[in-house]
Amino acid sequence: MTLPAPELRGDQRVAPSLVKFELLHVCAQTGARRGRLHTPHGTIETPVFMPVGTAGSVKAIAPDDLHTLGANIILGNTYHLMLRPGEQLIGELGGLHKFISWDRALLTDSGGFQVYSLAEKRKITEEGAAFQSHLDGSKHLLTPERSIEIQEVLGADIIMAFDECPPALSERSYMEASMARTTRWLHRCAAAWNRQRSSLFGIVQGGLDEALRKRHAEEVCAVDLPGYALGGFAVGEEPVQMHAGVAFSAPLLPKDKPRYLMGVGTPLDLVTCVGAGIDMFDCVLPTRSARNSLLFTSEGKLVIKNARYAKDERPLDPKCGCYACKSFSRAYLRHLFVSQELVAMRLNTLHNLHFFLTLMAQARAAIEADRYGDFLKEFHSRPTTPEP
Amino acid sequence: MTLPAPELRGDQRVAPSLVKFELLHVCAQTGARRGRLHTPHGTIETPVFMPVGTAGSVKAIAPDDLHTLGANIILGNTYHLMLRPGEQLIGELGGLHKFISWDRALLTDSGGFQVYSLAEKRKITEEGAAFQSHLDGSKHLLTPERSIEIQEVLGADIIMAFDECPPALSERSYMEASMARTTRWLHRCAAAWNRQRSSLFGIVQGGLDEALRKRHAEEVCAVDLPGYALGGFAVGEEPVQMHAGVAFSAPLLPKDKPRYLMGVGTPLDLVTCVGAGIDMFDCVLPTRSARNSLLFTSEGKLVIKNARYAKDERPLDPKCGCYACKSFSRAYLRHLFVSQELVAMRLNTLHNLHFFLTLMAQARAAIEADRYGDFLKEFHSRPTTPEP
Repeated sequence: MTLPAPELRGDQRVAPSLVKFELLHVCAQTGARRGRLHTPHGTIETPVFMPVGTAGSVKAIAPDDLHTLGANIILGNTYHLMLRPGEQLIGELGGLHKFISWDRALLTDSGGFQVYSLAEKRKITEEGAAFQSHLDGSKHLLTPERSIEIQEVLGADIIMAFDECPPALSERSYMEASMARTTRWLHRCAAAWNRQRSSLFGIVQGGLDEALRKRHAEEVCAVDLPGYALGGFAVGEEPVQMHAGVAFSAPLLPKDKPRYLMGVGTPLDLVTCVGAGIDMFDCVLPTRSARNSLLFTSEGKLVIKNARYAKDERPLDPKCGCYACKSFSRAYLRHLFVSQELVAMRLNTLHNLHFFLTLMAQARAAIEADRYGDFLKEFHSRPTTPEP
Repeated sequence: MTLPAPELRGDQRVAPSLVKFELLHVCAQTGARRGRLHTPHGTIETPVFMPVGTAGSVKAIAPDDLHTLGANIILGNTYHLMLRPGEQLIGELGGLHKFISWDRALLTDSGGFQVYSLAEKRKITEEGAAFQSHLDGSKHLLTPERSIEIQEVLGADIIMAFDECPPALSERSYMEASMARTTRWLHRCAAAWNRQRSSLFGIVQGGLDEALRKRHAEEVCAVDLPGYALGGFAVGEEPVQMHAGVAFSAPLLPKDKPRYLMGVGTPLDLVTCVGAGIDMFDCVLPTRSARNSLLFTSEGKLVIKNARYAKDERPLDPKCGCYACKSFSRAYLRHLFVSQELVAMRLNTLHNLHFFLTLMAQARAAIEADRYGDFLKEFHSRPTTPEP
């Protein structure tokens, strides 16, 4: 697929497609930031949690549900979409927004992470990552240029640099070599990127080592981009290690640009890392857990398939206003799940996403009120399991 | 579970729980009837198609979707619900309406049909049907009295007599013996039935034999009930045989009571049998087909998983106003189905039910306008497969 030539005439010109971040307020008690991300497909209040729409669908729910939930930005996965239905088909049909009928903001990842976590027979070289599809074994090569090309065809508002994501606990020598290559790949991404089309975010790696994070943040942030992300967290380390790593890494990113912590996390991770100054999050946890019957509530985690809920007439979460909680008992939701009724997947997903999005709205309100430190304390005093 | 004793003091007294049928109009061109069924959970315009909510859920959709579709009555299956979660649990939690959060009308079948079609090691005696659960092999006995008891605990507005449903093409001697037993079972059902709780419909069997249907209709309609059904159609015979059988059977039922054709059918079956004077239908066809990628449209049947739709930007059915047709292309719906995205099940189900319910609304309008014969001709001239 050939893209039209960029209309850009000078590096200083701000393209209308670029997202613009507005830092509204920093909490007086913590480093938590209240911001606003302006995109070609609407404005997003930050901190924000972005539901993951893997293969062009936030699993088990449709755009009408996402609208009801108040989700203003979702993710698409380059790896999944390039393999099925293929970016070329999506491009011919008008891009990802049109294909999936989503009129709000979209972010695509670079495909790199799934190559490492899903693909078969992967081989990483300076050129890029060769791999075989987990669907049909077909051979593919993802390079910085190819990742940007695919993402531009998909046409998300925010696209991500192609990086390698080594486990947080990798050997230091491997980590340093990987970081250096990710930096070289970032320069290739930036050269391939058409800033008239979308906004490219760079990704800072460096694992749990503060010096490495600092060095890589300097390298990555030397490239002038509309946003920056932290990668390589929540890939094997303990939560407390991750929280410490994010705490020293977030401040390394520019204050006036959005800070995105990739692939994180649990409710505790979210509220903790908001406190460190993170603005954007994504994770499959709420949607994937929902499909496995694990539900997040104001009273802690609840495994709805458990027999103890068989006759429980209470709503899933008495404090929740989602459709599932307003309409059904735990007993019915359990019945749907154990009977493998498809609608269980939708109702559980609606609930978990509502919980995550509401948690972020509560966090935003606390930052605005300069009481995010208190909010964190209140969060830590929440029960972890529902009352019998 | 013990039920309160009936408050009934005389057979002639009409219980407030009984449904009441109002015959509004009979088409001047055909035997098609336009009616209204008043129930304790709202009024239903007839002819009506009732979506099947097998195990307490119309598969893949929730009550909010059913409300949007305008469904005013759905079915529950006694067989499925007695096995899981058990009628006792549903009774303890306030009945089926409350358990599934459905505030409109409900009909439950007697369980008999599923015993014959799903259960294992079934044995039919004069007492009833002994069988083993298809879920866990547990042993059960369903008798007329037990079926009524279960249905009364579930608390649907309309409950069905316990019958045997022999294949339409059974031997005449078997058919006659089965019919006689079904009549004896009907008397036992009527004796067990508490008319303060729900409305019992009788079921006329007799296969494709007009004399047997006539004899059984006389036996069944001799029991004064608020409605009557035709059973034993669409169980193996050709559609044309079924249509002929319904044509001579429907007029055997009382004019002033609702006539329900059980387990039927295709769009062609529905419009044909409305013409014969049927008021109520149920069938898993639209919901089950949806989950198998077979979609009913104004242009005929469309198998959305087919490769020919991979790049098709058109809506599923350009004449349809359902959420799936208003929002998505065939290409996206195909992608969702072949990628096994859960939301495909909901969208396909929404569409097929919208098609069936809209078809019945069109039929009602044609009857009111005394042009149902013309409507049938127009239906027969519809295309059977979509244009390429």
